[in-house]
Parts: sequence; C-alpha cells; structure tokens
Amino acid sequence: MKDRADNASCLGEVETRTLELELPAGGLRLEGGGALPAVTVAYETYGELRPERDNVIFICHALSGDAHAAGRHAGAPNSEGWWDSMIGPGKGIDTDHYCVICANTLGGCRGTTGPSSLNPATGRPYGSDFPPIRVADIVNVHRLLLRQLGIERLAAVIGGSFGGMQVLDWALRYPEMIDRCVCIASALSLSAQALAFDVVGRNSIMSDPAWQGGHYYAEGRVPAAGLAQARKLGHITYLSPEIMAAKFGRNRHNRRDARDGVGDRFRSNFEVERYLDHQGRKFVDRFDANSYLYITAAMDDFDLEDRYGGAVDAFARIQSKFLVVALSSDWLFPPEQSRTIASGLIQAGKPVSYCLLQAPHGHDAFLVDVRHLADALRAFLPWVGPSRTAQPAGAPRFSRVRAAERKREHCLIADMVETGAAVLDIGCGSGELLAMLEERKKVRGIGIDIDIGHVIDVLDCGCDVLQEDVDSGLAMIPDDTYDYAVMCETLQAVHQPRFVLHEMLRVARCGIVSFPNFGKWSHRAYLGVTGRMPKGGALPYEWYNTPNIHLFSLRDFLELCDEDGIVVLDSVCLPRGPVDRMLLACGACNAGAERILVKLTTAERAAARGAPVNRPCRRR
Amino acid sequence: MKDRADNASCLGEVETRTLELELPAGGLRLEGGGALPAVTVAYETYGELRPERDNVIFICHALSGDAHAAGRHAGAPNSEGWWDSMIGPGKGIDTDHYCVICANTLGGCRGTTGPSSLNPATGRPYGSDFPPIRVADIVNVHRLLLRQLGIERLAAVIGGSFGGMQVLDWALRYPEMIDRCVCIASALSLSAQALAFDVVGRNSIMSDPAWQGGHYYAEGRVPAAGLAQARKLGHITYLSPEIMAAKFGRNRHNRRDARDGVGDRFRSNFEVERYLDHQGRKFVDRFDANSYLYITAAMDDFDLEDRYGGAVDAFARIQSKFLVVALSSDWLFPPEQSRTIASGLIQAGKPVSYCLLQAPHGHDAFLVDVRHLADALRAFLPWVGPSRTAQPAGAPRFSRVRAAERKREHCLIADMVETGAAVLDIGCGSGELLAMLEERKKVRGIGIDIDIGHVIDVLDCGCDVLQEDVDSGLAMIPDDTYDYAVMCETLQAVHQPRFVLHEMLRVARCGIVSFPNFGKWSHRAYLGVTGRMPKGGALPYEWYNTPNIHLFSLRDFLELCDEDGIVVLDSVCLPRGPVDRMLLACGACNAGAERILVKLTTAERAAARGAPVNRPCRRR
Repeated sequence: MKDRADNASCLGEVETRTLELELPAGGLRLEGGGALPAVTVAYETYGELRPERDNVIFICHALSGDAHAAGRHAGAPNSEGWWDSMIGPGKGIDTDHYCVICANTLGGCRGTTGPSSLNPATGRPYGSDFPPIRVADIVNVHRLLLRQLGIERLAAVIGGSFGGMQVLDWALRYPEMIDRCVCIASALSLSAQALAFDVVGRNSIMSDPAWQGGHYYAEGRVPAAGLAQARKLGHITYLSPEIMAAKFGRNRHNRRDARDGVGDRFRSNFEVERYLDHQGRKFVDRFDANSYLYITAAMDDFDLEDRYGGAVDAFARIQSKFLVVALSSDWLFPPEQSRTIASGLIQAGKPVSYCLLQAPHGHDAFLVDVRHLADALRAFLPWVGPSRTAQPAGAPRFSRVRAAERKREHCLIADMVETGAAVLDIGCGSGELLAMLEERKKVRGIGIDIDIGHVIDVLDCGCDVLQEDVDSGLAMIPDDTYDYAVMCETLQAVHQPRFVLHEMLRVARCGIVSFPNFGKWSHRAYLGVTGRMPKGGALPYEWYNTPNIHLFSLRDFLELCDEDGIVVLDSVCLPRGPVDRMLLACGACNAGAERILVKLTTAERAAARGAPVNRPCRRR
Repeated sequence: MKDRADNASCLGEVETRTLELELPAGGLRLEGGGALPAVTVAYETYGELRPERDNVIFICHALSGDAHAAGRHAGAPNSEGWWDSMIGPGKGIDTDHYCVICANTLGGCRGTTGPSSLNPATGRPYGSDFPPIRVADIVNVHRLLLRQLGIERLAAVIGGSFGGMQVLDWALRYPEMIDRCVCIASALSLSAQALAFDVVGRNSIMSDPAWQGGHYYAEGRVPAAGLAQARKLGHITYLSPEIMAAKFGRNRHNRRDARDGVGDRFRSNFEVERYLDHQGRKFVDRFDANSYLYITAAMDDFDLEDRYGGAVDAFARIQSKFLVVALSSDWLFPPEQSRTIASGLIQAGKPVSYCLLQAPHGHDAFLVDVRHLADALRAFLPWVGPSRTAQPAGAPRFSRVRAAERKREHCLIADMVETGAAVLDIGCGSGELLAMLEERKKVRGIGIDIDIGHVIDVLDCGCDVLQEDVDSGLAMIPDDTYDYAVMCETLQAVHQPRFVLHEMLRVARCGIVSFPNFGKWSHRAYLGVTGRMPKGGALPYEWYNTPNIHLFSLRDFLELCDEDGIVVLDSVCLPRGPVDRMLLACGACNAGAERILVKLTTAERAAARGAPVNRPCRRR
C-alpha cells in the first residue's frame, strides 16, 4: 500500500467532463436574488461507484482550485490534480474503495458557469452582469450535479479552506444526504483580518484600468496587474512566516527579468519578489479576475452564525459525523476558528472529532503536509469496501504487568458506568478504554488526548476524539454534556489539578478518577528511611523527569474533595503486594493502596439525586 | 506625576524647524553611490538642553512618521505628535529632565529632503531621479543635524520598528556618541514575510498608471490608488488579528460612500473595508508615493548581519547599554527578531536588557499600549536631572521571617562569589540579590525573570535583565558567558530541572543553587505519620496549587550531580529549628536541612582548575 501511496498520480489519466444542469423554468434561482438561465458544471470522478451507490465522497475545492483534484490529464505532463497526494489508490482518500467526485464551483472559470461564460441574453460574456453568488448557490449546483449523476447519498463531503465552508453548508442544508463531513482549516466565517486581505485584493483588481468595471473580455486585455497583485497577496497569507523564511529568507538572485519594464528601480532582487511575480503571472494565465471577485465576495459573505442565529442553533440540524482539522501554522484560518466549529458541534450534541495537525507550511499545508492528515482521514472515513486489513501491531506501550493492571482498572471503570451512557475519557491514549466501554457498555464515547498518534488510533476505533491539552481542553465543552468523565492516572500530571477536577465535574454528571497514592506505606518508608523521593510502582520516574508533577495521597485527595464540595460515590483501592492487601484488609486504605479509583460527583448533584455515598474504599 | 502623564499633550505648542545642512563640496555622499548637493532637515525639540549638553535623547521615527513626535502645532487642534503619549513632562521620556529631538528622515516628505524636493540641477522635483538611500544615509543626516546644533553626545537614541533599525545603525557607526539605546519592535533585517508585503505594496504604487515612472509631480495627479493600496496593506500588518477582530469583527455599516464610483459591486459594507479606505485616503493626503518607495526600499535593504558579517561581529563595536523591547502580538516584527538582537548583544558581551511586553495591539502597540513601555523606559534611561525620588514601597513580597531568611541566603551567596565577577541570576525577582551583589561584590549582574513588574524593578536598580521563561530562556546565552549563575529556590519549580541545571552550567563557570530539601526529617515524619503530602517550611503550598513541581531531597540532588558529572564545590545547609541543628551537628544533612545552598561546576571544569571539592555540607 505504502509504495503505491508514495507514487504520485498512481490514478493515471483522468478527464474533466461537463454536464448541463437540467433546470426548472426560470433557471437556477440564486440565494441573493437573481437567476441563471443555464448552468454547466465541470467535474471529475475517480474510483468505481458501487452498485449500492453508497461510496461517493464529494470534494469541495478551495478559492482557486478546480474539478481536477487528482490524476493526470492525457497528453499533459505535470498535470497532476491539486490534491493528487491525497486522492488515489491506497491514499488518504482511497479510490480503491471510494468513488470520489470533485466539481468546479459556480462562479469559477474552469468549466463551470461563471462571469466569463456567455450570457445567453446578450451572447457576450456576463462580466459583472453575472449575478452575485453565495456559498449556498455553489452547493446547490453541486447537489444538482450529483442528482443528475444518480447519487442521492454521500459517504463523505471533504473540503479545506473555502471548501470547508462548502462542507458546512452541505451538512446544514442537506443533512440527510451525508454520512460524514471533514472540514479542514476552515471557519464559520472569515476573520476581520482575512476580510481585510480580501478587500485589498479586490481593490487591486478593481483599480486596474484594464478591469473596466468587469467588462474586459471583448478587448482581449485582462486586468493582469490587478489580478496578479491579488494573488501575490493571497500567497503571502497561504504560507506561514516560518516556511517563507525557510524557502526564501533574504536570498537574492542575479537574474534580470525582462518581463516587467516599468519600475525596475524599485523592484528588488529578493527571491521572494521573484517567487511572488511568478505566482502572480501563473495565476493570470489560468484564472479569471471576475471569478476571483465573485468567489472571494461569496467567501467573505459566508457567515454561518449570522445566517442561523448562532452556531449551536445551526448545528442542531446536522446528521453527519464531523472531523474538524486545524493546521498549527495556519494564520489565515487560524486553529482557533476550527476549534470554534468543533466546540459548536459539541454544544449542539453532535459527534465530532478535532485534530490540530503540526504543519509548518501554513494554510496551504493541507495540500502539502499530507502525512497525518491522510492517516486521520483514513481512520475517520466510513468503510464501505471489504473489511479493513488489520493494522500491524506497534510496540506495546506498557510492560505486560502494567498492561494487565490497566486492563483490570478498565474493567472496574466499566462496572462504574451505566449502559448507554455518554462518556468522556480525558487523556484517552489510544482509546482502549473507550473501545472497551463501547463494546461492553454501549456507551457513546469521546476522548481527549494531545498526541496525534493517539488521536488517529481513537478515530480508527470509530470513537470521537478531541486533540487538546487536558489542562485547557475541557473549556470547549459545555456544562453537563456527558454522563461520565474518566481520567485515568492523569490528574497528577496536569498543571492545575484542582481546576481540572472542577472542569471535569462541570462537563459531566460523574467523574471517575484514578491516581497513584503517594501515601502508600512503601513510599512513606522509602522517604522515611532513605530520605529520597519515592519511586516505584505507580510512580516509576526519577524526580527530574517525572510527568507526575502534583503528587498526593488518597487522604490529600479526599480532603480536597471535602473542601470543594465534591462527593465520593464509590472508591476502589488497587493493591499489589501482600503487605498492601494486609493493610487494605485493616481498612488502612491510605497506606495500603498503590493506586486509587474513585467515582465522584458534586455535592449539589449528589443531594439532588439522594445518592448513597460510599466513602470507605472497597478493596479489589 | 501620574496626573500630568495622563494629560495628553501637556507639552503644549511646539514647532517644526528646518535646518540646511552645511555640506562639503560634492554634497552629501550616499552609501549606495550618488550624492545630494543640498539637504534640508526638519526637526523638533522638547525640553531644555542642560548646559553640559548631556541630556539629549534622539528619537528615530518609523516608516511613515515625521519630526512631530510630541506636543501640538499652533492653531491646529488635534495635532498631537505621533508619540505624544510617551514624550512630555512626567512621561516615559520625561522632558522635565531630557532634551528630546526628533527629525524627519532623509527621503521623507515631511520637511527633510526627499524625492518630492526640488532637484537643484533641474529646478523640478527629483521624482525617481532621487538617488537610492540606505538607513546609514538617514542616520548620517541626523548626525550632521545634531552636530550643527552643537550636540556631540546622546544620553539615548530611541526608536521603534524602522526607527529601531536606525537605532542599531547609530549604535554601530557612532558608538562613542551614545550612552543608551532603546530598540523597540525591530529587527536585524526584515523577515521574508515582511519583505513580501513591501514588495506587494510597492507593486501597487508602480502599477498605478498615475505613478508614471515616478515623475508625476508636474501633472498635479498623484498615484493615489496605488499609495492607498500600499497603506491599506501596511495597516493590516500593523494590527494584530485579535485587535482587528475586537475593533471591526464582521461588523457592517449602512452608509453608502460616494467617494469611490468604480467597482461598487465588489465593495463590501464591512467596517474593516471602510476603515482601510479611510486609512488609505488619509495617508494619500499626507504622504508622497515616491517617499514610500524609497523608504521601504531602504528598510528592505537594511541587513545588519549581511553588512557586518554577522550580528556578533557587528555588535563588538557597540559602547552603549541596550534595552530591546518586543511586543507580544507583533507579527510584522515578531518577538523572535527582538530576541535575536538581544541574544547577539549577549554573545558580543554587551550589556543588554530584553522585555517582551504583553501588548494586544500588534506592531502598532508601541504607539498605543504605553504603560509598561513607559515604565521600562523610565527605569532604563540614565538619570541626568536631580536624583530620582524614592519609589513608594509596595506591599512586602514575603513575611518578615521569610525576608530575613532570604537576606541571610543572599549573604551566603555573596560569600561564594568573587569580587568583580559576571553573575547571572536565574529567576531574579525584583533584583534584590543582584543589587546586593553589585554593591558588595562589584559584580556585573544580569537577571532573568518572566514577570514584567520584576523586570522593571531590576532595570530600576540599574541592572540588566532578560524577560524570559527560565525553562527556555538560557538558550539565548552562549557557553561560558558568566562566572556565576545563581538560581534561588527556582530549580524545583521549572519543568525540566535536569536540563535547566545543565544549561546553567553551560552558560556559567559555576552554578549556585538553593532548593527546599524534601528529605528533611519533618517532611519524612509528616508523610510517614499522617500519610499526607508534606507541607510547611520551605514548602508552604498545597499539593494542588504548589509551583514546586519537582520535589527532591539533598540526596536525590547529589545523586543526579554524580550521575551527570556535576561537582559540588561547596554546600551550606540552612536549618530552622533545634532538631534541624542537632541533626546537622551529627552530619545528617539530608535529614536536618530545611533548604540547601550548593555551589556547583562541571567535572571537566573542576578537574581543569584542580579545585578542592567540599562535598559534606557546611552548616549555618
């Protein structure tokens, strides 16, 4: 599989097809008023449609993309599609199993009707007589395309950047059609800064005299300077400052470029200027200035919160599972905006996973840094082909003894959880507990973990997961969202244990916490006799490299609970040796327990339901 | 003082004066070749020049600034200078004590000779016949101005952004003239991203047909659209995304602005577009497009490392004390660039302080968020007026007992340090130890602390200080920079104690570390008897809110030293009660000591100098 995935464009030759939409009388009515009498759509497909027609993945392209997402065009070397690294046999979006469709957007200039298309009313290109379009119009056109192709359900809709906005619109207006959505480096609406860049870009085009109010097609002269300026500016915003520094730094070239006669005095020989010039020129060759104006205006206008009166209200209608992906170095659609999408979905009670990929390239990274993104997509997408080959087992994370102990702890936790409950696993690792709870207790599980490897493992189990730091990540979850929040040997490793404990009991009705007991007799004896920091058992690290930065005993913990109005509903002490067992038998839990497992709730909740409180520890 | 500082423009009326430079035959020779036969300079002064002529502070303005830095112009309401909030009686740059001078830069359009000035050879404005200029030319012109004003020494040169580049040039080429330098939100050279924005900005001007290759003055029509575009783009880069979101968000207005007829279809009603339009128009009214081209080209060209073959080589010639200030939300001149300046100065062995101010406004913040900046400047500037009034004492940081203990510890540290040594105090707080060491041991001291209040206190003591996190901050210091590095009760609070310990012994010949001893008998007894996390004495916090996240005993510490080739040269055990003293008397240091103070070095260094190693603890 890997070899094939590495081989660019293993899809081979593909072709862009066009289809004339069958429209009702009056044509395609547009969201902002106005209508189009005729609409042509350019699209490509990769992979086979199953007879059940249930394996279609629709790809929404970004601002300057087109229908040619993958493969090569016949007779055109180096014509790989814009997401060829992601789409193909064995790749992140696997054409061995899915039938992938990508179509050019309405308003574009790459085969789908747009301002450069002929206006049937005049026989001349629309120019700025083309009606204003919105994201909803783009999605409507694609839905009509799919319907004409006989496709009524989508296994997934996937898009990045402006494509992500289309994904959101798909999910909101055609909820019954879509199984899963992947929204990459996108937003509920553009930020003020991103709006400002678009404003400047559009002004560049409009203040180019060659634009002529948008009616330049007859002259054979396009607003090249203005469009190139807009594209240069765009390119700066697509790259992270780090990648610009790495690619160009302050390097200078010696070449004298004859293409620009004017203003040589103030043209620098910095490589970055040459790169931007090149990008500007290349764009002018393949893109239409009016399309740029119409599509950026649609993007600026998109505002999910404004349209639906808030994200949570909007998301209430969603029926698909979501994967929201943010890119660490993206400053045009910064991670916070993706996090807001994920948070809104959680608040609306919808299944969502959220990843923050470490991607140095900036906003463009989803086209470039594909590795973790491909893994995350593969893990998240529903499986419609033959059952998946088992993953090669990695190195075991724990010793066999430790693994057995952990398994026993997981069983004890399962005993504490009601069947069918909603469970949050804070610091979920690879999702072993979640998977077990889903299997044995039919819970609806979601995990939180900071490690992308863990996150992908959890997605692979079919569970939801948020890639977040435990110390701050609970903030995106509203009050009382889950029945249980579990935290296995994590509390002692967070920076603000008291805060995290309260956060846990804010987002869930019940907390289940396990931690190493610093009050165990062997730790006491070790410090008392040797005068050294206790080590061993559940505390295996040296003082200088331990992740366990807030140590405490069972007694310390219970005292904090007392002080903070936290009620222990149940507790289990986990022993190891015969001495521990002996001490536990005498009820000396604080001295006998190696690790403690407690079930907690707030005093208010406990009082409200009159729950019996089981303070002394049960031994296992 | 405070009331006066709050009162904007308490300087009153000021006026811009001009002065014709007395130039040698051949005129002013420029760095990039070419010469100017005549140069006029526009400047303003605030505050009185002392008879000793030793209280002059020169202000270097940024890209679009001018000589009018403070006060009001007669008959012009709302004409406060661009840094009026900082300059004036009782303000950060206090005109009760300093004579402040600011002058328009060469190439500008606000009174100093530039491309819009008359070319004596033709009798017409220079336009793009004006010779290219560099930062060094700007500084040379200002130096000639000062000389003609009879000023041969500067108490300080201060500038932000492009002004900070001028400060660096001043310090490098006229080192003997300058006591102190303040370089705010600046860089050794522009980043690739900042270059790219300048490229796009200049292209906007040059592709405006009204620019006409730079010779537009005769026509009475200026390249307004192009210059406005450049300014709009600039404005986006001056603001942080957070402040843009707060100021404009996605707000829309209802007004229909008649000023722009063309392209209304693609003009939005977002507030941010109106703001940018306004900024663009305002700028066209007061600034010349050619000046923008010349000055941004000079800024892009500035590259201190390239010119001098590296920052450290360059900085070797510097004779002034530096304060380098970075702004947290600045993404045009990001903090990392200021840190690089500070780091280069440290590597060159020059006195430098570095602050990272929490300033939400972005690059522009030094003009807006003045509070901590004003305090830092006041604390850093040399005092040439009557001696400073004592600061009102704040609330004491420690209990009296704790303060006395700390004082005793400081005296013990002083005993371990040679007179005249270079000392780094890691986690220096308000600089009490540094001040004491400077007074009693004549050390050259520098501190590291993350808290801006502490940093300002240390500056106020006259010491250098770096505002850095202890866990990562030592990275900016080269090997063997100091004789001693001191870390008082900080090691147990860092995230990576082992790494920090090694970093400490990398940057300094000797380390002096104090820490609470977890092996003290009372901690052992407390855990042993109560089964609770020890508390009290040097460990006063609860387990859940303690900043002490890596606890260890003297024995633990010594074992790590052994393992890592760290040699204890001297150690002092600090007792409290009679039991502690008794135990110490028996040599049971690990049980008797409340806190430990050790002097360390690496095994290699110890072997090299054959130092006697005093392993058993001395009692105090």
